[in-house]
Amino acid sequence: MRILSGIRPTGKVHIGHYVGVFENWVRLQNEGHDTFYFVADWHALTTHYEDTSELRQNTFELVKTMMAVGLEKSTLFVQSAIKQHAELFLLFAMVTPLSWLERVPTYKEMRQQVTNRDLSNAGFLMYPVLQAADILIYKADGVPVGEDQVYHIELTREIARRFNYIFKKEVFPEPKELLSKVPKLLGTDGRKMSKSYGNTIPLITTEQELSKMIMPMVTDTNRKRRSDPGNPEVCPVWDYHKAFGTADNPEEKQWVYEGCTQAKIGCIDCKRLLLKNMLGKLQPIWDRYNSISDDEVKAKMEEGNEKARQVAQRTMNEVREAVQIMF
Amino acid sequence: MRILSGIRPTGKVHIGHYVGVFENWVRLQNEGHDTFYFVADWHALTTHYEDTSELRQNTFELVKTMMAVGLEKSTLFVQSAIKQHAELFLLFAMVTPLSWLERVPTYKEMRQQVTNRDLSNAGFLMYPVLQAADILIYKADGVPVGEDQVYHIELTREIARRFNYIFKKEVFPEPKELLSKVPKLLGTDGRKMSKSYGNTIPLITTEQELSKMIMPMVTDTNRKRRSDPGNPEVCPVWDYHKAFGTADNPEEKQWVYEGCTQAKIGCIDCKRLLLKNMLGKLQPIWDRYNSISDDEVKAKMEEGNEKARQVAQRTMNEVREAVQIMF
Repeated sequence: MRILSGIRPTGKVHIGHYVGVFENWVRLQNEGHDTFYFVADWHALTTHYEDTSELRQNTFELVKTMMAVGLEKSTLFVQSAIKQHAELFLLFAMVTPLSWLERVPTYKEMRQQVTNRDLSNAGFLMYPVLQAADILIYKADGVPVGEDQVYHIELTREIARRFNYIFKKEVFPEPKELLSKVPKLLGTDGRKMSKSYGNTIPLITTEQELSKMIMPMVTDTNRKRRSDPGNPEVCPVWDYHKAFGTADNPEEKQWVYEGCTQAKIGCIDCKRLLLKNMLGKLQPIWDRYNSISDDEVKAKMEEGNEKARQVAQRTMNEVREAVQIMF
Repeated sequence: MRILSGIRPTGKVHIGHYVGVFENWVRLQNEGHDTFYFVADWHALTTHYEDTSELRQNTFELVKTMMAVGLEKSTLFVQSAIKQHAELFLLFAMVTPLSWLERVPTYKEMRQQVTNRDLSNAGFLMYPVLQAADILIYKADGVPVGEDQVYHIELTREIARRFNYIFKKEVFPEPKELLSKVPKLLGTDGRKMSKSYGNTIPLITTEQELSKMIMPMVTDTNRKRRSDPGNPEVCPVWDYHKAFGTADNPEEKQWVYEGCTQAKIGCIDCKRLLLKNMLGKLQPIWDRYNSISDDEVKAKMEEGNEKARQVAQRTMNEVREAVQIMF
């Protein structure tokens, strides 16, 4: 099964990307699927066109990070290197009813809610059309996404269907969304993890830095003293434990759960265990990250771009034939 | 001065294209400007995506016709061959406010008035963005257009200004519209020339066919009998005389004007003169058209595509640098 997914280079990669996105991508790769993962740098412009000073750096680091988390067997590429996405985007714009775009729930929500950024640009409305081009140009069977993206995949199927219908040729298969449970990870202050709150934990860091962020982390706010019993179910740290394997280890799980609810352990003890478990997963990623040279990133990226380009070009040949356009 | 203009391959080229568009293009070429003229086949899809069966044939014939009317010194190319237009279109979509597109007068008008075709597609709204990309990618100084396109050129300047402002680099100069008086030519039945009325006169035809269309043409409807005086100012045939040089020849002008208003000549006499003058301009075009081989068209098109692509690529290198996108 061909799997395709992308990530936008809008900032530093944080720990939430790892447990929510990359772990899942690695799993799909290791299950033997034909996995295509890309840095969606054009997509970043739909919302972040006003400051692109870190765009290249972020793009490069994302590819490096994808290599470090273990995606080396996948086709890793950069969207802006595959110009065919833009061409298919243009052609899809011709057959996509405006009303389909105007009714996208995330579109309406974000236009209303996002106030620190101007989203009145045409590109933001056209976002799902570009996404459909990204997916369909590789004839992906499955697209790993979060809940908020399900509607976009539905729209991608509608665009595929409409293109095939108008041009009387079954060029595009209909991709399925692969919904994965995304572990909830709050920021270090217990609020939603967000760059603007300054409460994010970067994926690539050091043991010392990680410790500095984890140790003072907000826990169950009702456990004010060491002697108060706590409740893991309302504690952000327990979510981290679940994401980093403590909950899968019966002994550790019991130690935390009993220790917390019966005030046998303090939050510091609990966080020390978390740190140990995080390091178990993250240290190898950091080691790989630090051992990868820029040239290796470039080589991997070029290899992925070339492979993606060939697939995209093949699809575009079919598309041009169906549309009966000269070039 | 670099001049750029395009024509959509939505049907057979008719006589109105010649006097309204091509004559003007030839004049600008012969004045020594660096003229780029293209077949806007992607643009044809913004309104004609539902039937593309003649798109390639129309595109090819347009290039051939442009060669025949005397545009051989210009860079003639096909839009869909220059993929950079699609890439710049995508990037322009990111910085173009939706409201700019929604307020385009022709957009609102056509959405309301055109009923035989579905214009609710996103591509139709995005039309002026693609047009801005077409123009700005060649850094055109002047764009010959009709009245109805003036707002689009204004929008093109606004997009250029906004791009330069956001990305802090003067990548795009602001093009000027070159308004030319487009002679009014009605259809053979006196109504607006339109494919759907079946009243158009193709540019490429034969003397016999042209005669069959001109001779029964509707004239001043108040001149019912040969002995009735006529009024050239309300006669569609007089518009043709103006477009085909009769009005520039004092002797012929007087013969028609006096003959008509004083009922000295019949409409048939008047049309015979028109036919003679039309043939004087059209016969050389037909001769050239018929002498051009398909291979010559292909060669000219490839040469133009290659030249256009190089210019477009240079601009895109600057664009990518300004946007700070990786590829």
